[in-house]
Amino acid sequence: VRTLRELGEQETIRLLTRGAARADVVVGPGDDAAVLRSDPGEDLVATTDALVEGRHFLPAWLTPAERGARLATANLSDLAAMAARPRWALLAIGARGEHEVESLLEFQNGLAAALAPEGAVVVGGNLTAVRSEEWWSLTLLGSAARGRTWTRAGARPGHLLAVTGRPGRAAAGLALARAAESARPDGAAGPAADDEAWRPLLDAWLRPRARVSFALALSPANAVTAAIDISDGLAGDLARLCEPGGVGCDVQAAVLPEDPLLERAAATLGLPVTELRFGPSDDYELLLAIDPMKRHAAERAARETGTPFAFAGRFTDRRGELSLVSADGARQPLSPRGFDHFAGQR
Amino acid sequence: VRTLRELGEQETIRLLTRGAARADVVVGPGDDAAVLRSDPGEDLVATTDALVEGRHFLPAWLTPAERGARLATANLSDLAAMAARPRWALLAIGARGEHEVESLLEFQNGLAAALAPEGAVVVGGNLTAVRSEEWWSLTLLGSAARGRTWTRAGARPGHLLAVTGRPGRAAAGLALARAAESARPDGAAGPAADDEAWRPLLDAWLRPRARVSFALALSPANAVTAAIDISDGLAGDLARLCEPGGVGCDVQAAVLPEDPLLERAAATLGLPVTELRFGPSDDYELLLAIDPMKRHAAERAARETGTPFAFAGRFTDRRGELSLVSADGARQPLSPRGFDHFAGQR
Repeated sequence: VRTLRELGEQETIRLLTRGAARADVVVGPGDDAAVLRSDPGEDLVATTDALVEGRHFLPAWLTPAERGARLATANLSDLAAMAARPRWALLAIGARGEHEVESLLEFQNGLAAALAPEGAVVVGGNLTAVRSEEWWSLTLLGSAARGRTWTRAGARPGHLLAVTGRPGRAAAGLALARAAESARPDGAAGPAADDEAWRPLLDAWLRPRARVSFALALSPANAVTAAIDISDGLAGDLARLCEPGGVGCDVQAAVLPEDPLLERAAATLGLPVTELRFGPSDDYELLLAIDPMKRHAAERAARETGTPFAFAGRFTDRRGELSLVSADGARQPLSPRGFDHFAGQR
Repeated sequence: VRTLRELGEQETIRLLTRGAARADVVVGPGDDAAVLRSDPGEDLVATTDALVEGRHFLPAWLTPAERGARLATANLSDLAAMAARPRWALLAIGARGEHEVESLLEFQNGLAAALAPEGAVVVGGNLTAVRSEEWWSLTLLGSAARGRTWTRAGARPGHLLAVTGRPGRAAAGLALARAAESARPDGAAGPAADDEAWRPLLDAWLRPRARVSFALALSPANAVTAAIDISDGLAGDLARLCEPGGVGCDVQAAVLPEDPLLERAAATLGLPVTELRFGPSDDYELLLAIDPMKRHAAERAARETGTPFAFAGRFTDRRGELSLVSADGARQPLSPRGFDHFAGQR
């Protein structure tokens, strides 16, 4: 077992740096910068997201490789929300000198393995020494046919709200893990979370997948008028999707995808299921505004890519107003609470 | 004075996020990702570099705006070493909740002000809460005519070694500041470093400028066969420039640019001037291998952009061998010691 300090910066970087032998990588890792080649008529799409030790993961629950995969997903999900094809990534690391080189390589391997099936490869990075909290910051670059990216702007009254997957499951997984940790102060998985029945909820939290292939399948249909990924929670991200277009949204409780497992978790945790479903939850699912004339194209893309998909409401002209409408027509306001990293420190 | 915690994440991001109204920024900050448009026939060039509190700067010596400018320069210098035109940047921040929003804005303004004259603009970013050391990680994207970037590979025996500026000045500035700090344990600038005569050395360390305009002026001449920026020190970076081509280099002491101020600093500090000049020093100058047939083109680009420039030796077929050759022909080996972030923690 070698630490970063024993191996030294240069040698560690050499181990972290592998060739990226692809036609679209002209110069890969190991030079002052990477040189990348996109196709004529393509726009470049760029995002960045970070993982900080102790804040974004409870260490006992995730291997280094899973942490790497999670960071990849957070970035991939941003590109999915723009309907961009993931291509190139740069990874900046802040690590302590006593960090074991092997676990750093595992992290990078997990990250690379999560990027690869979506078409992206690590082309560069940076390694810096820190004294305390470690961090990983990924910048992911993708491409899209010129002018064909989705944005958050464009939802109009009458457009349909659609959602992939089963939002709220990540929040349920996290809440189950926290409940288990407080029951077992050694930090290991407690009996509740160990239950195999909860596995899909824990996986939604620990091992989320971004909806890249669905977005790329749907993009050519011109059906999507606005898009955002759910990284803070359905209600909070829906509010952000409404804001640029100056619209509101009626969420139809009856047409939301059923999720008996989520309901069972809510009961076990003593929480209202709506809190899990609409509150803070980093599900990395997509929220879409869909042109009602193109609803079948959206359903087809979901079917073809095996993506759980449901229409869940309709945008309205009531600016900024989010409502949950029950089957009998009763309306209740939906509070757009999202996750605030800094409020979490209070 | 508002802290991040008081203002909250969303509002802080709103303040940090300004529009980037340029034809090559299709979607700027505030969406899931930025959408960028390069010209047909251009390659994309990407680099990333970070600044960590307490490691990359002594807080008493730099304002937040100067720290931002320094981070910009570290990245700009990487693009200069590839002869790429800086265009778009993404800034990831790890900040404590008690960080004052104003100083965060100052940092970002300093960064933006250093990027602007070189043609680059911030198009996206990420803000994360940390508990201890703060950090800033910048990814800078540039463009270059297809296949026209410089790389570290390509130096051949007989090619000329050229260097911009006066390497070693950053090391001298840092050493003067450290000497002053140890004399004045309150961390304020001591008498030695306060001396106005040292200002150019302190500026080389605190306020370096990247050689972007020189690189862009020289690029079309096809004179450069290999390039690297000096971020770790002349000898260490020269070793890296020799490695891919399997060459060595004779550095001619007599043709190195004279630097009486550096010599005076070395005497004051009780250090050999060669240690400052060739040892660890983040000068952000360029080391170039130049085709001897094109030496005049290089001199012309230097003249046109007002860049201090000197030929400083010749590459040889003695693989990995760096020598300092004095005026009388005596040779001494040049040790390629660079800066190791992790060794620094020992």
